[in-house]
Parts: sequence; C-alpha cells; structure tokens
Amino acid sequence: MFAPVYLDHNATTPADPAVVEAMLPYLSALCGNASSRHEYGRAARRAIDEARSKVAAAVGAHASEVVFTSGGSEANNLLIKGAAACLKPGVLVVGAIEHPCVIRPAEQLRKRGWTLHKLAVDGVGRFAAAEFAALMAERPKIVSLMLANNETGVVQDIAPLARQARAAGAWFHSDAVQALGKIPVDFRRLNAAGVNALSVSAHKIGGPKGAAALVLDKRLDIEPLIAGGGHERGLRSGTENVAAIVGFGVACELASERLAAQAARLLALRERLESGLLGLGATVFGQAAERLPNTVCFAFPDLDGETLVGQLDRAGYAVASGAACSSSSPEPSHVLRAMGVGPELARGAVRVSLGGDNSGAEVDGFLATLQVTVIRLQQLTAMAV
Amino acid sequence: MFAPVYLDHNATTPADPAVVEAMLPYLSALCGNASSRHEYGRAARRAIDEARSKVAAAVGAHASEVVFTSGGSEANNLLIKGAAACLKPGVLVVGAIEHPCVIRPAEQLRKRGWTLHKLAVDGVGRFAAAEFAALMAERPKIVSLMLANNETGVVQDIAPLARQARAAGAWFHSDAVQALGKIPVDFRRLNAAGVNALSVSAHKIGGPKGAAALVLDKRLDIEPLIAGGGHERGLRSGTENVAAIVGFGVACELASERLAAQAARLLALRERLESGLLGLGATVFGQAAERLPNTVCFAFPDLDGETLVGQLDRAGYAVASGAACSSSSPEPSHVLRAMGVGPELARGAVRVSLGGDNSGAEVDGFLATLQVTVIRLQQLTAMAV
Repeated sequence: MFAPVYLDHNATTPADPAVVEAMLPYLSALCGNASSRHEYGRAARRAIDEARSKVAAAVGAHASEVVFTSGGSEANNLLIKGAAACLKPGVLVVGAIEHPCVIRPAEQLRKRGWTLHKLAVDGVGRFAAAEFAALMAERPKIVSLMLANNETGVVQDIAPLARQARAAGAWFHSDAVQALGKIPVDFRRLNAAGVNALSVSAHKIGGPKGAAALVLDKRLDIEPLIAGGGHERGLRSGTENVAAIVGFGVACELASERLAAQAARLLALRERLESGLLGLGATVFGQAAERLPNTVCFAFPDLDGETLVGQLDRAGYAVASGAACSSSSPEPSHVLRAMGVGPELARGAVRVSLGGDNSGAEVDGFLATLQVTVIRLQQLTAMAV
Repeated sequence: MFAPVYLDHNATTPADPAVVEAMLPYLSALCGNASSRHEYGRAARRAIDEARSKVAAAVGAHASEVVFTSGGSEANNLLIKGAAACLKPGVLVVGAIEHPCVIRPAEQLRKRGWTLHKLAVDGVGRFAAAEFAALMAERPKIVSLMLANNETGVVQDIAPLARQARAAGAWFHSDAVQALGKIPVDFRRLNAAGVNALSVSAHKIGGPKGAAALVLDKRLDIEPLIAGGGHERGLRSGTENVAAIVGFGVACELASERLAAQAARLLALRERLESGLLGLGATVFGQAAERLPNTVCFAFPDLDGETLVGQLDRAGYAVASGAACSSSSPEPSHVLRAMGVGPELARGAVRVSLGGDNSGAEVDGFLATLQVTVIRLQQLTAMAV
C-alpha cells in the first residue's frame, strides 16, 4: 500500500497501539451496556469510571466534572446551545478564529434572539484585548474563546480574558481540542481564573474517533443536547461508547506522560521545518505568536494551497490546506482572513502538523520535495503569465 | 473470568468478529480524517461511502438518505428537535411507550410551546388506533411512533398510522432501533405509506457502539443538533467515527444475510423459553401481540424484578429488569404501566432478549436456574409474611 508520510496530526491522529489494545476487549467479550445491572454492565461501568478519572487527571479536573460526548463538535455545541437554553437571550462572544463547531452554533443562537460578537484577532492571531475589554461592558452571558488554533497553532492567553468575563457575569468556555497533549491544560487553574468549561477530544491525541469530553464547572447549568435515558448526569444521554471512552482514557494517560518530552521534540522538528520554509521564501502565519509546538501554517505567494497539497500528496506527504473540516470549502480560511491576510495569500495556505511518529528525516524529506514542487509550480505559473 | 450467559441483546450486543476485523485498520494505519484531501482522507471517505451503501441496503433506503450519528439517542433527538426547529410550535404526538430518548426531547419541546400528546396503547402494547385517528383532527406537525418496543418486543403496524399522519399533514418518524436485524425494515415501503424518517443503531445488531443513522426523507427539513464543519450534508457535523461507521456497515450486511434464518431460530428459542415461563406461573407481557422473535418480558406475582435479576446474575445469567437505560430508576416501567399493568406486577418485570450466540441448552439452563431461584424467593417471601 502507498503510505504517504503523515503530517496532518491536527486533523486526526493514528490511535496509539496501547490505545487500540485497551479498546479491543470492549468491542467483543466485554460488550456490556454500562447501564445494565449484571456483570457485563458493571464491567463496562467500571471501565468508564476508570477512563473518566484518567481524562480528568490529564486536564487537571475532578472526574465528576467530565461529561463524555461523541466528539469535540458535540462538546462545543452542547456547551454553547446547552448553556443558552438555560438563559434568556443576551450577548454571546466567540472568537473570529474559532472552529466552525463553535461559530455555527453561535450563529444558530443569533437566529433565536442572541446578539453575536465575533472577537477580532491581531496580525499574529492573538485575541484583541482592547476589543474584548470593551465588549465586557455589554455584559455578555456566554463567551467562547479557544485555547489554541487548529490552523495556525497560535496559543491564546485566556486566563486574563476569563477573569474579565467573570467580572462581567459571563460563563466562559474554551475549545481546548487542539491544545490537549501539545501544551499543558489545567482546568483547576483556568477555572480559578474564570474558565467554566473546556472541550477536549480523543482522536487529536492518539485516541480513537468517537470519544471526547466537555469538562464542566458544576455551577454552570446546561440543558442536554441529546436527552433520553439520563446518562452522564443527565447532560448527555445515549449508550456510552465504552471502547472509545476506554481508548480516550489511555490516550490521556499517555499524552500526560509524554507531554514535556514530546513537546520539546516536536518544537525542535518544527523549528527545523520552519527555517527550511523561510529559506524557500514562504510566509509563516502567526510566526511571532506563541504557537503549538507541532503546527506550522505557511504559504508561497502566487501558489494555490490546494494545488500544492495535491502535488505533495502524490509525492508522498499528507498535509492540509487549512482545516480538514472545511477542506471542501473553496473560501480562503476565515482564520487567516481574521488575521488580516489577503485572500490571495490565504488561498495559498498549507498546514503541516507534526506528531509523535514523525522524524527529522521526514521533515528533511518533506522540505526537499516541497522545494522541487514549489519550483515546478512557480515555473508553470511564470509560463502561464 | 466469570462469564454469565448473555441474554440481554436488546441492551447491546457483542460486535461480530467480522465487524471488529473490518474496524481495526481504521483505528490505526487507515486513521485519516474523511474530510482531509490526501490519500488517508480519501481512504476514510471511501470506507464511509461503502458503509453508507450497506446501511442503506439493509433498510431499503438510498445511500443519500442515510445520516450517520453517534447513536440511536442522537438520531431520535436530531429528528424530533431538528424538525421542530424548522416549524412553528404546534402539536406533537409520540407513543406513550417510546424510549426516553424520544419522550425527553418531546418534553423539552413542550417547554418551548409545543403541545405534546402521548399516544396510549392497549393491554397487549399496540398503539390505540381510535385515539390516534382522533388526534389527527388536531393536525399534528410531528408524529414519532416506534416500530418495535425495547422492553416487550411488541411490533407495531405503523404503515396505516403513517398514512393518516400524512393525510393530516404531519411528518412521521419511527424509532426502528430494536426492529433492525430482527424483523424486515423497509424504508422505501414505509416511506410510500408516509414514514419520513427512521432511526437505526449499530450496537443492537452486532455492530459497535458509536455509530447509528437517521434515515431521512429529503423533503423533511431538519436543523442540525451538532452544527459545525458541515459533515453529513450539513445535518450532523463532527469528524466521522470512521471505524464505527465501517463496523456498522458490515453489521448491516451480516444482519440482512442472516435475518430470515436467525429470526426463525430465535423465535423457536423464544417459544421454548416462553412455554417454560408460563409453566412456572409467569405472566408474559404483550403475549397476544406480534412481537420481536428474540424478546420476552415477564413477571412473577410478588417477586421484585431487580432482586430476580440480581440473583440470576450471580447464578450466571445476564438479563434485564426493564430497559438498560432506565435500570437505575426505581420507577416501574412506563411501557408496562401504559399497557395497564399494575405497579406491583410491573415492578416484577424481567426482560430476556436472545441473540445469535444463544443456544437451546442456554435457554433450558436459564429456565432451570430461574425455577430454583423463583422457588427460593417465593419461600423467603412466604416466610416474611
């Protein structure tokens, strides 16, 4: 089988072999429904309890604060729509660079009478502090600002923003899906600053697709998105995906153990990659900001990102043009546009997101292939002019 | 390991070995995000497309009518709340014996201005035809009536009800989660009668937890419950759980192949079980109704169902006291209460739901153990009086 080098870990990651091994029994012999009152059911319940403790430990939360969902998109929708359902319509603030699974539910609320503000970012992708402070005068009821951006890797300092939001009486949520496993995520510390909820997901950290969590301050009332049998303290009904939740627990444990060493190793790889990219004449987006150690988003003037990604795929390197979820959209990235990047350059965006399985040799190979590809595409462009 | 005989297939089923085998590559080597535009992403997309065709074939639908969700509870919530979000509040009809994941979202809508009617059933658990006909005069906008009940196994003849609902201008949904794999489910035929949507789930038919589908007539507008990247034609955002979806496809294929033979075999086992139960003096609920070939719900006068389930578990037989999802509730089953069963007898309910892995010897062993257990508990009860 043709197996390109995988450099798209922000889209999804291969499950760690230890994760798959832990999941397998729960797909067959230990197949119980965790709500059943027999040995199979109790075994499933114990496995979920154990996974809940592991997820909680990885994010510095108490197990009782972890609400399992089917994915990060569900966790973000649950928080935003679930909190809104317990409030009268008011002002809602989300980042202009949020993932669509924060922006779209916010837009759904706008149709139901909420006033939506999208918080701007500066040229390197950081939330605009002065605009945020001014927005607090409007007494927002819900604020959702991400911890780290999926496209650029830019990391936000949300604690000071959460403090202001709390002072203004808002509930504060942060999409931490891309942060977990790459930088430290400490709900207890963030909660003290005013962050009431975090979303995290298994498949971005070497866990399986199908499990994620909303980490939730119990003072925050939310209505379930999926109502029914009353699972997850009534906040998320539906038979628990035991195997995926078990895998999520193991992935969290591994991610915590490996965090410091892996972050250092990925940062070294990223710097090697970035100095190569700059040498080839690329623009690196958010370069001056603190960024995730694994993420580089770049563009070459006059080269289309989609075309470049297609050429690199055929040459054996799997990278992304912007976020996977919006890869089918021809529009330039809303994240880059919010940073003031012109539509032409934004259309050139290519994202490389490294993972634990990547090596320095792979980075060097990628750079060499990229150079050849860019030169060929530039010659074609020059000939066409 | 202590491995009780599993007689609780309506709660969940072990995944078929062929299902697990098909899933495995998508947990590791073929880990791509189906929205990614590289070879890993395309491989994931192809796998989802193939699974969609298999699920569609199993329910007599077109692949484009299948919307994947994380579970049956999500599919039911998506239809009920999603359809309601596109309508002005009006009249909503659900069966009194529906699963909580239909009843609870209906109750959430009642708080938002909808008028909720719960359709009664007769003494054997069939929907009350005269009451339904009368309700149609109120011009309901949404009707949700299940195809087969999870607790009693009673199968409904929904086509005539759907015809009346269509004439009254209602959208008609049916929870087919317990029907799939046990009796024929044909969306094309039901759709012709006026059924606009069906919910089905993988883990009830030998597939994994974490995948299900809403089979949806495209004339029916619904708003997504989980909004974001626009997956599943914009009706369900979130990175697809590729492995679970692949497993669902294989489970559907196997269920269709095996349906006729398995239904006949299970029916023979059920009749063997039932004649034994009646011989021991049990009441079988819904006995006079058409029922799923695998399900028996029974009770002994003066014996508590929970106690009996606990004793049977210790003796090596995993059965349920009512539905798994509400096993933590001390209330007698709403299904049996709707059938007019008194609270005392309803509290005695025990459900046996057979599966392809059960044998005649297991049924005989269960009956022998049950007899010993019932006699002991009856003696204890008599001594206590």
